Amino acid sequence: MTNRVINFNAGPATLPLAAIERAHRELLDFQGTGMSILEHSHRGKEYDRVHNETVDLVKELLSVPDNYHVLFFQGGASTQFVIVPMNLIPVGGSADYVLTGHWATRPYEEANLIAKVRAAADVEQNGKFTRVPKQNELKVDSKAAYLHITSNNTIEGTQFFDFPDTNSVPLVADMSSDIMWRPFDVSRFGLFYAGAQKNIGPAGVTLVVVRKDLVEKARTDIPVIFRYSTFAKENSLFNTPPCFSIYMMRNVLSIVKEQGGLSVVEKQNREKARILYQVIDAYSDYYCCPVEKDSRSVMTPVFRLPTEELEAKFIAEAKKVGMVGLKGHRSVGGCRASMYNAMTLANIQTLANFMEKFRKANLEA
Amino acid sequence: MTNRVINFNAGPATLPLAAIERAHRELLDFQGTGMSILEHSHRGKEYDRVHNETVDLVKELLSVPDNYHVLFFQGGASTQFVIVPMNLIPVGGSADYVLTGHWATRPYEEANLIAKVRAAADVEQNGKFTRVPKQNELKVDSKAAYLHITSNNTIEGTQFFDFPDTNSVPLVADMSSDIMWRPFDVSRFGLFYAGAQKNIGPAGVTLVVVRKDLVEKARTDIPVIFRYSTFAKENSLFNTPPCFSIYMMRNVLSIVKEQGGLSVVEKQNREKARILYQVIDAYSDYYCCPVEKDSRSVMTPVFRLPTEELEAKFIAEAKKVGMVGLKGHRSVGGCRASMYNAMTLANIQTLANFMEKFRKANLEA
Repeated sequence: MTNRVINFNAGPATLPLAAIERAHRELLDFQGTGMSILEHSHRGKEYDRVHNETVDLVKELLSVPDNYHVLFFQGGASTQFVIVPMNLIPVGGSADYVLTGHWATRPYEEANLIAKVRAAADVEQNGKFTRVPKQNELKVDSKAAYLHITSNNTIEGTQFFDFPDTNSVPLVADMSSDIMWRPFDVSRFGLFYAGAQKNIGPAGVTLVVVRKDLVEKARTDIPVIFRYSTFAKENSLFNTPPCFSIYMMRNVLSIVKEQGGLSVVEKQNREKARILYQVIDAYSDYYCCPVEKDSRSVMTPVFRLPTEELEAKFIAEAKKVGMVGLKGHRSVGGCRASMYNAMTLANIQTLANFMEKFRKANLEA
Repeated sequence: MTNRVINFNAGPATLPLAAIERAHRELLDFQGTGMSILEHSHRGKEYDRVHNETVDLVKELLSVPDNYHVLFFQGGASTQFVIVPMNLIPVGGSADYVLTGHWATRPYEEANLIAKVRAAADVEQNGKFTRVPKQNELKVDSKAAYLHITSNNTIEGTQFFDFPDTNSVPLVADMSSDIMWRPFDVSRFGLFYAGAQKNIGPAGVTLVVVRKDLVEKARTDIPVIFRYSTFAKENSLFNTPPCFSIYMMRNVLSIVKEQGGLSVVEKQNREKARILYQVIDAYSDYYCCPVEKDSRSVMTPVFRLPTEELEAKFIAEAKKVGMVGLKGHRSVGGCRASMYNAMTLANIQTLANFMEKFRKANLEA
């Protein structure tokens, strides 16, 4: 129908076309109710069904155990950077953070404004983050309220494949850029959160999955609207939720379910990463991934070309043939191919072919 | 095209059909870019144009002076209940609140958890709020960081038509349910905020207009993501904004502009209110508005019938003829006709006619 581009944007990012087409079909008159989903009351039964279907899809796709709440917040991961410590660090307590890049340092800095925080690991070397730490590098304070990790680092192109063992210290993760890239054991976590706008929906809603006992013992001297207990008690309907963003998350997750769930998604994601990194490694005279091999992100691979001029040319020529969003983050430069769940294998093959051809055509440049 | 109902929902609420139709036309391929607005980067020039057009429309429609910022937050008015005192009440300071109903008391309670607050007026009588206070009833502390009002009280059906004089104390207002119902003098305010989902858009975005000097002297020891200065400095693009909700606000405000701006809107709103209250007063043997006449809301009129049974029947029969959302808030019962900007005069005439007929048919009941 449309002349759809291949969209490598880092987030908001490409969504399954079928999820948008469903929204398009339903937008003017939601299920024969004579109004748009944009106009439905969050207290009405029509929206309620959408809301609960979304909660149920999260529970089903991630096999969320019964002792966890599935909550929807607003404000993005950046707001959870504050809400997490506000709720979970008791008076006089502290929390540990693993520093693996820009988006791992931001939550550490925010938490530092309201409580005591420690770096349990910091993998920065010469101003660069090129890997995630190994288990034996983590110095976790056994009295920490939690250990916070950023499971995928979009700017640096690194990702955790094995989650840290933290013994009795609850593990907390910002999974904004790799939530649902594969199945994982939710019971390893005290809490994880994800801005939807990369893997599971549009901007405007943040998924929070949190163990019930942590909510029960969370601080109660903080504003009501910032308490996990408020959202848990009211099924994220204490105040008006971001209805349309949740509706879109429903559309996206329905499709993931139809496709066979997260095992199928994982297989596709691993194959996409294999294809991309194979081209980079096969032409290591031309392309270079600055990340250590066992930390290379499956979601957001980053790579460099011989010169910044060639990088600019690469990005411009890719755009001409319908591939957009390949520019790396402004703070590090280079190229980045965000390959979230909705990015197809065929699209990555197209990118890989383009990379081969571009190298050949620009080798002598 | 669709069999559209008359939607009296209190919020999320009816939107101009043309605003939804525009979204429908553009949803699959935004302006020939080969992707949906849901997939556009918030750092890209396409979204940037939408974002800035929305800011400009707010400035133009409200004649916002240059010494004010126009900002977009997430989290609804309920989040501003906390963000306002966090930013504006200095260490050791306090703020004044005018208590006119449920949604005026909530911000007072939230602020009370983080700073000292005072009630500058409380119009509750016998457990009910049936009016807003007069100027001479306000006991404003001249040292207060601000005086907070709720300009329209959706549950109680009351509204401020004259804003309080506060001398040097900044006036702060939650205008969620009556923002842009008419033109008003922005310079009277230190800050006002509004969840979009009633008069200016869908759920998921909150408009904040704040005087620049208040932002400059706001507290800097609070989390970065909660500082007005962060949003002011980055044009509300510090982190990913709720892009689609802002896009829809753009669509709604464009239509308001096309229709001739807020003077035209005010005329229509006053006429809608005149028609509705006229029926209520003409049949005062049957209908009753519990609000004192000069506090009667133009946006969210509330009214009662002789018995709760008749109210239930009224709401059910109205639904049968295509009018939904007429039930009053569960905490007070009765009926409520939310008549936001997008509610047409013709629809209110239909409601008024229905009220006449219903009374006639059920007078002897």
